[in-house]
Amino acid sequence: MEKQDLGRTEIASLGEFGLIEHLTKNFEIQKEKSHNGIGDDAAVIDNTGFLTVVSTDLLVEGVHFDLMYCPLKHLGYKAVVVNLSDIYAMNARPKQVTVSIAVSNRFSVEGLDELYDGIHAACKNYGVDLVGGDTTSSQKGLIISVTAIGQGEQGKLTYRSGARPGDLLCVTGDLGAAYLGLQILEREKQLYLSSPDIQPDLEEQQYIIGRFLKPEARKEMIEIFEKAKLVPTAMMDVSDGISSDLMHICKQSGVGAIIEESGVPMQNDTKLLALKFKLDPLTCALNGGEDYELLFTIDPKDLEKVRLLPDIYIMGEITEASEGIKLHTESGKRHDLLAQGWRHF
Amino acid sequence: MEKQDLGRTEIASLGEFGLIEHLTKNFEIQKEKSHNGIGDDAAVIDNTGFLTVVSTDLLVEGVHFDLMYCPLKHLGYKAVVVNLSDIYAMNARPKQVTVSIAVSNRFSVEGLDELYDGIHAACKNYGVDLVGGDTTSSQKGLIISVTAIGQGEQGKLTYRSGARPGDLLCVTGDLGAAYLGLQILEREKQLYLSSPDIQPDLEEQQYIIGRFLKPEARKEMIEIFEKAKLVPTAMMDVSDGISSDLMHICKQSGVGAIIEESGVPMQNDTKLLALKFKLDPLTCALNGGEDYELLFTIDPKDLEKVRLLPDIYIMGEITEASEGIKLHTESGKRHDLLAQGWRHF
Repeated sequence: MEKQDLGRTEIASLGEFGLIEHLTKNFEIQKEKSHNGIGDDAAVIDNTGFLTVVSTDLLVEGVHFDLMYCPLKHLGYKAVVVNLSDIYAMNARPKQVTVSIAVSNRFSVEGLDELYDGIHAACKNYGVDLVGGDTTSSQKGLIISVTAIGQGEQGKLTYRSGARPGDLLCVTGDLGAAYLGLQILEREKQLYLSSPDIQPDLEEQQYIIGRFLKPEARKEMIEIFEKAKLVPTAMMDVSDGISSDLMHICKQSGVGAIIEESGVPMQNDTKLLALKFKLDPLTCALNGGEDYELLFTIDPKDLEKVRLLPDIYIMGEITEASEGIKLHTESGKRHDLLAQGWRHF
Repeated sequence: MEKQDLGRTEIASLGEFGLIEHLTKNFEIQKEKSHNGIGDDAAVIDNTGFLTVVSTDLLVEGVHFDLMYCPLKHLGYKAVVVNLSDIYAMNARPKQVTVSIAVSNRFSVEGLDELYDGIHAACKNYGVDLVGGDTTSSQKGLIISVTAIGQGEQGKLTYRSGARPGDLLCVTGDLGAAYLGLQILEREKQLYLSSPDIQPDLEEQQYIIGRFLKPEARKEMIEIFEKAKLVPTAMMDVSDGISSDLMHICKQSGVGAIIEESGVPMQNDTKLLALKFKLDPLTCALNGGEDYELLFTIDPKDLEKVRLLPDIYIMGEITEASEGIKLHTESGKRHDLLAQGWRHF
């Protein structure tokens, strides 16, 4: 049993409906298109004239997050952002989210307030409305389910199935940092568990840890694509790791691919940290995951458009399916790219 | 540790993506409007010309269901149906669902196949498409998150906030049976736990148990409303129990209500069983919940329309907020209706 802290409000003191009201009182509807907010049987959204794009995720404490190093506020922020990232990966615009949580009585109302502060910050930063959800209890731990709803236009949506041989394989931003951020936090957790009085100094690694704890979705990239009149042939976000994610594109498009080692974007700090952890930097970049960058393919005729755009890297090429999915190393070798995404089972 | 049964396939043997493919292989897209099925970052839905209606629920083993008496197939069916019920309660038509599950390794692939058989049956019966979801592991038990997406028309959607004093309060079907179905199953569970060799005989109570284990949503009622050109002023589905649900309508509409005891529809079998359990039948009907009937209000000028429709009961009237929410008993007394919906905290 947990001690009753001063300043701790038991969830039971509010009840289910009271809790929903309490947690969502600061969420004002931003979009005119969100007709109906929280508190009816269903949310009502005006997507007339647009296609509706829907993505959903289920996050389970102990499987997808560890509250020992993941502050509840960051968790709320990340839970929303990773779903928005899926909508952007369709070349669509997220407009609404629903958030459902199940919590054990280990959590106080103040703890859930932190979680919802993060959810609120994400909604605000990305201009989306919280329009519904469910709040209930769990026997153990925290469970978060987020559904993101967006708008897309016919002919502009990017599926995983649209890559064709000869297309260029591109990625935004830099890779591998989120995975190394997790490694730092895991190491600090072990140190803390063995010597609770040592205070970790994580200042230096703020970028890398931030990439894991508080990722951002590539909203501006979708806006840049639109201005440049660029529609990728296929796109997805980097969640399980490039190797695993690229495998999905290749499978669904019926194509192969080749990645150039020299084309894989990594920050120097990430590379150095990988070596410090005795990890292969390239493996971190290709298999780490949780970068929430955009992995996409373009028709070669769009190359000039992409060359002018910031923060996009051409990493390889789409090939015939018979050629498989290969990595071309800087030493000139070609070998099979192995998908080792995060497996939850 | 669970014994390895013959015919038991470990989830780990398929992996996450293999499991999704396996579980969803029989789900064919039924609607032309579901552009993109399972297997991309997000589902794409053509709701152009309509408002999009979204509802979501999170179900946790040990809190919302007990697998000792709830077969996985029924659970899958019910998990979908209760969400569709929320869409119908908006006077809208569900078109798609997303289903996310988190499972511990206690479950086999065969067990999840059962669950998805039920999900499939519900999708087929109600003509909705499974268009996405997430499949992951939990540390303990089964967690199911369902999001239902539907279409509605401006001017025809029914919110909880539209009831006005003088409106008639109506309900479909009959009440209280689901709650008594649960009581039977709980009793049988206790009997089984104390004497595992006694086989329960539940034949006689099939209707009542079915109301709890395999509820149906009132799809046909929405169609009947449309044919009759009837748009309720407010509507919601009966999930927590009439008392609690009516409280929501009254609060959001800024009105009061009076229920006539004589107008509360119950089947005789339900009443008899309540008495057998030494429960007050009216309390079961008003506070039991999980009936998934429709509770709605109509403008009195629509009375003639409703009189001609099947399976609708006029249960009371909407009053001024100052009059509160009252029950008028058959003995002529008026007292406050107490909301005692199912509280998960």
